[in-house]
Amino acid sequence: MRRRIPYLGRVWETVDEWQLLERIARRVPKAGDDCAVVPWRTTNLLFTLDMLHRTTDFPTGTTPYTIGWRSVAVSLSDIAAMGGVPLAVLLGLSVPEFDPAFTDEVLSGAQDCCMAAGSELAGGDLDSSEELFLSSCALGECARPVLRRGAQPGELVCITGPLGATAQALHLMDDGQAEAANTLLRFAPRTSEGQRISKVASSMIDISDGLAHSLHLLAEASGVGFRVESERIPWVPGLQDPAFSYGEDFELLYTVPERLHRPQLGTAIGRVTNSGVYLSGPDGVPPLPDRGYSHGR
Amino acid sequence: MRRRIPYLGRVWETVDEWQLLERIARRVPKAGDDCAVVPWRTTNLLFTLDMLHRTTDFPTGTTPYTIGWRSVAVSLSDIAAMGGVPLAVLLGLSVPEFDPAFTDEVLSGAQDCCMAAGSELAGGDLDSSEELFLSSCALGECARPVLRRGAQPGELVCITGPLGATAQALHLMDDGQAEAANTLLRFAPRTSEGQRISKVASSMIDISDGLAHSLHLLAEASGVGFRVESERIPWVPGLQDPAFSYGEDFELLYTVPERLHRPQLGTAIGRVTNSGVYLSGPDGVPPLPDRGYSHGR
Repeated sequence: MRRRIPYLGRVWETVDEWQLLERIARRVPKAGDDCAVVPWRTTNLLFTLDMLHRTTDFPTGTTPYTIGWRSVAVSLSDIAAMGGVPLAVLLGLSVPEFDPAFTDEVLSGAQDCCMAAGSELAGGDLDSSEELFLSSCALGECARPVLRRGAQPGELVCITGPLGATAQALHLMDDGQAEAANTLLRFAPRTSEGQRISKVASSMIDISDGLAHSLHLLAEASGVGFRVESERIPWVPGLQDPAFSYGEDFELLYTVPERLHRPQLGTAIGRVTNSGVYLSGPDGVPPLPDRGYSHGR
Repeated sequence: MRRRIPYLGRVWETVDEWQLLERIARRVPKAGDDCAVVPWRTTNLLFTLDMLHRTTDFPTGTTPYTIGWRSVAVSLSDIAAMGGVPLAVLLGLSVPEFDPAFTDEVLSGAQDCCMAAGSELAGGDLDSSEELFLSSCALGECARPVLRRGAQPGELVCITGPLGATAQALHLMDDGQAEAANTLLRFAPRTSEGQRISKVASSMIDISDGLAHSLHLLAEASGVGFRVESERIPWVPGLQDPAFSYGEDFELLYTVPERLHRPQLGTAIGRVTNSGVYLSGPDGVPPLPDRGYSHGR
């Protein structure tokens, strides 16, 4: 059975993927953050791998150029989320047909995205499969990477940009506005923002699995809680149905001591607390459930 | 249509994949060797990505442990082929079922192979797909990487070990000797050999696409030819049907000035010439066609 496209942040019945990820993280100690951190000489190398499929990751109407762009952007976003400087990217293409026009467009999108992030496409792999499948791997460097753990009660929690870009792109695609949708899908990885934020942040993550789940991951890794003010959360203009479980957004979520906060780096949406993840709004302060994007079925 | 398992080196009707790879190599200048070479500070980082599928890369009877081992070994072999020291490996798993027993075995195989090569599994990615799909990415370092170009006429061409291990594993599998077959499939990446060879070699490649095609790749990259003595080629004991187009072997093929050749590093199988790839044997010196493993259909 084909899986549904999970972009719209519907809640899956099972959380098996996350359970399995936790199990893997126990076996592979360096996994469990946005990138693997490899201490080397006087610095750290950052190293991350992402897999993307046609049916799950690219809605109908996504151009080959956007597919290439977005595939490498996802990995560059992981480098950004630790404050890293990207050094190089690899892109593996498993394609149903060896179609040079298609691969040219995919590579152009990937190369342009790498250039936008100050990096370069350095190689990859090619083979064939029934479904389009891409593997993107980014290499970066950072003397002091910002981890998911490190948040302290009393600090601010901030986000680099509005939520819902991918959800809005899907609405535009359904509405026949494919070009506008593709533009929105080609997000710029926040690598330069991540490097500036890393000078002041105590913890950081990208919100690729949705705001709610990303808050829970930070909370668990840091042993803290969050109280987010719902009216402070920025949303993409025109979004019809804001949802905290929207996945596939690639803004950075980070915590910072209040005296080091700079509004030009990100919007403060709440505070670090001792425990629990709560959303304060007109309806009181209910818990924000740990829901978001998962590759469940 | 499912592709056939191409292990046995049957010649494909089309060479589209190689044509497409050449096209990609023209667009991505750092592609086209075993690893991308990223100059960094006083050294070079080596960076390589490989994709593997259940139907194409793992014959029926391959255990999950062997699948994990072989997936990372393929990437570590690329690091070996440039003389690199491996620093870390990532493994992406796209699985039909979130089955912890299966992923535990795959990770054990991957971790044991990394350890055998003096490296470590540092992370990866997880999602689901209909067919088992793995992405392996290795990071290495080398001050003076050995490229495919650099061979000089008059030098020796050498190989680190016998050909046909994967073909022999398939014969054993067909013969019901699954355990022996799995042992043969879990080749040890030649990373320490590659580092020693890199002190003397003028060019190097791993023979994952078969001896014949690998010789042609070295010849083209270096602007030389080869004359290989067929009786000098080592074969795996008991191999029924030796063929130069056997793919998925992971020995190193390299060229070396005769005065620097050391038999303990590899077997000399012929000489670098000015042009053409020929196989000298009892039937004369016919050209060795550029045939081997391809992901064609």
